[in-house]
Amino acid sequence: MSKTPRIKGVLSPVVTPFDNDLNPDTARFINHCKWLISQGCGLAAFGTNSEANSLSVNERMALLDAILAAGIDPARMMPGTGCCSISDSVRLTEHAVKAGCAGALMLPPFYYKGVSDEGLYRNYSEIIERVGDDRLRIYLYHIPPVAVVGITTGLVERLLKDYPGTVAGMKDSSGDWINSKKFLDAFGSTGFDVFVGSESLLLANMRSGGAGCISATANVNTAAIVKLYEEWKNADADAQQEALNAVRKVTGQYVMIPALKRIVGHYSKDPDWSTVRPPLVELTDEQATKVLDGLRALGFTMPGLAAA
Amino acid sequence: MSKTPRIKGVLSPVVTPFDNDLNPDTARFINHCKWLISQGCGLAAFGTNSEANSLSVNERMALLDAILAAGIDPARMMPGTGCCSISDSVRLTEHAVKAGCAGALMLPPFYYKGVSDEGLYRNYSEIIERVGDDRLRIYLYHIPPVAVVGITTGLVERLLKDYPGTVAGMKDSSGDWINSKKFLDAFGSTGFDVFVGSESLLLANMRSGGAGCISATANVNTAAIVKLYEEWKNADADAQQEALNAVRKVTGQYVMIPALKRIVGHYSKDPDWSTVRPPLVELTDEQATKVLDGLRALGFTMPGLAAA
Repeated sequence: MSKTPRIKGVLSPVVTPFDNDLNPDTARFINHCKWLISQGCGLAAFGTNSEANSLSVNERMALLDAILAAGIDPARMMPGTGCCSISDSVRLTEHAVKAGCAGALMLPPFYYKGVSDEGLYRNYSEIIERVGDDRLRIYLYHIPPVAVVGITTGLVERLLKDYPGTVAGMKDSSGDWINSKKFLDAFGSTGFDVFVGSESLLLANMRSGGAGCISATANVNTAAIVKLYEEWKNADADAQQEALNAVRKVTGQYVMIPALKRIVGHYSKDPDWSTVRPPLVELTDEQATKVLDGLRALGFTMPGLAAA
Repeated sequence: MSKTPRIKGVLSPVVTPFDNDLNPDTARFINHCKWLISQGCGLAAFGTNSEANSLSVNERMALLDAILAAGIDPARMMPGTGCCSISDSVRLTEHAVKAGCAGALMLPPFYYKGVSDEGLYRNYSEIIERVGDDRLRIYLYHIPPVAVVGITTGLVERLLKDYPGTVAGMKDSSGDWINSKKFLDAFGSTGFDVFVGSESLLLANMRSGGAGCISATANVNTAAIVKLYEEWKNADADAQQEALNAVRKVTGQYVMIPALKRIVGHYSKDPDWSTVRPPLVELTDEQATKVLDGLRALGFTMPGLAAA
């Protein structure tokens, strides 16, 4: 079976809405995914900002099935499928591949700390072998501030050597441009796609041959981030980057996930969007007011967003 | 429905055997659980040393069902049931309670770092409310070197106030006696049971009114640890503690989990026991020889242990 073209550009780790009983809210999720797609954004559903690890495997698969059934193109999807357990990772990855998703974004197993590259190699290798599907494209997910366990160049080198068509790239959420550049320099020429984990590094990444960004704020400041991805060679690219940074600074002044949900709820006139699953807590009204006032001052909008 | 007596003493975070395809090996697991019980040890199955987070929820439930079907008394069990997702935690906790287990050892959700006590309170509260069973006894699991997210006295205070019959104690795997003592001093008088996470602190814990220990090495040095629990008031208690420490030093000189599995495999003449799931890796033969020689020099044995 032939592979689809590589997924590139701006992807959103789609925030996951919950109902009042803390169950995933499928209608709101589909609505938000459709809006993101309408803005030119791809879907890295079930990422850190999706509270994916606060969901069960079955809840994640049901949500993916729901957006597929709603007609969203899997070629625009790179769902998160990396778990602490290879059993869970295999189940989610297999499900994503069979659905035709363009890629799978894979956290390393993150419970044990200080594990060896050999152990991480075996984790990814075991998953690739068990899934056993030529269409599989894995994107390694490096997010040391949260997962603590990270991805090294040594690990990538070994995986690329043994699974050249399958290990397609990475998401670097270290927030450290020097680290992203290191992976680009080491592997970029082989077609290894580096997505930065924040749009604040999008321009730098594009200028160095990167593939785009997968960023929390792509849930809300979507069109503007996509615009810079498309226009990074333009004369006003640096000005665009500065404008993105200003929005990000306001959005991320408290905890990012509840802030994003509050913003989506505000602009879609659907305040129940603010619900998060423990261990996260929603923003206080005072915090939310500061975020929303700050965005208003920047002329921020979410055009075309409506309640589900 | 009335509660069973509190579980106390020495509990083993039972190491989980895997077959050559990395699937849980039920026969070996039952065999090891029965041996542990025969040595006077309780079963904290599905702990850190059990590679529990490397298992799926279904794999964990199937293993618990298997030892129950093998006739092992659930009053001697405190399975680990705390996951990153409340959906998973509720499912595992409900299953353990319905099986009649004496307690449930609950990690905090450990993916997001820097979360608030309010968020952790909501996590435990939500699980307790959803399980909704008077028989439930929760033991909070504090293991900051691995989970990073930890349990504070402020969290325990709130939970004890709202769920006094349900929040029964904790396992402190900080390895810091000052921390264990802090919880004993704050809550011991209310009947809150503190288990230390290493037998190296067992004597100190018993002298301060603690409930016992839940320790990796209880998988192998079982009878000797149980003996100190029973004889901690004896004149030779300090000498017993020193002997336990000497065995632990040898056992833990490399990574603990593969070392334990290698030891069980050696003394049961069943070398396939050494298999671990990624991201862990087995000991090298050289490392294993050092561990086994070290134990032999201390006169270490595992009496009555045989292959499954």
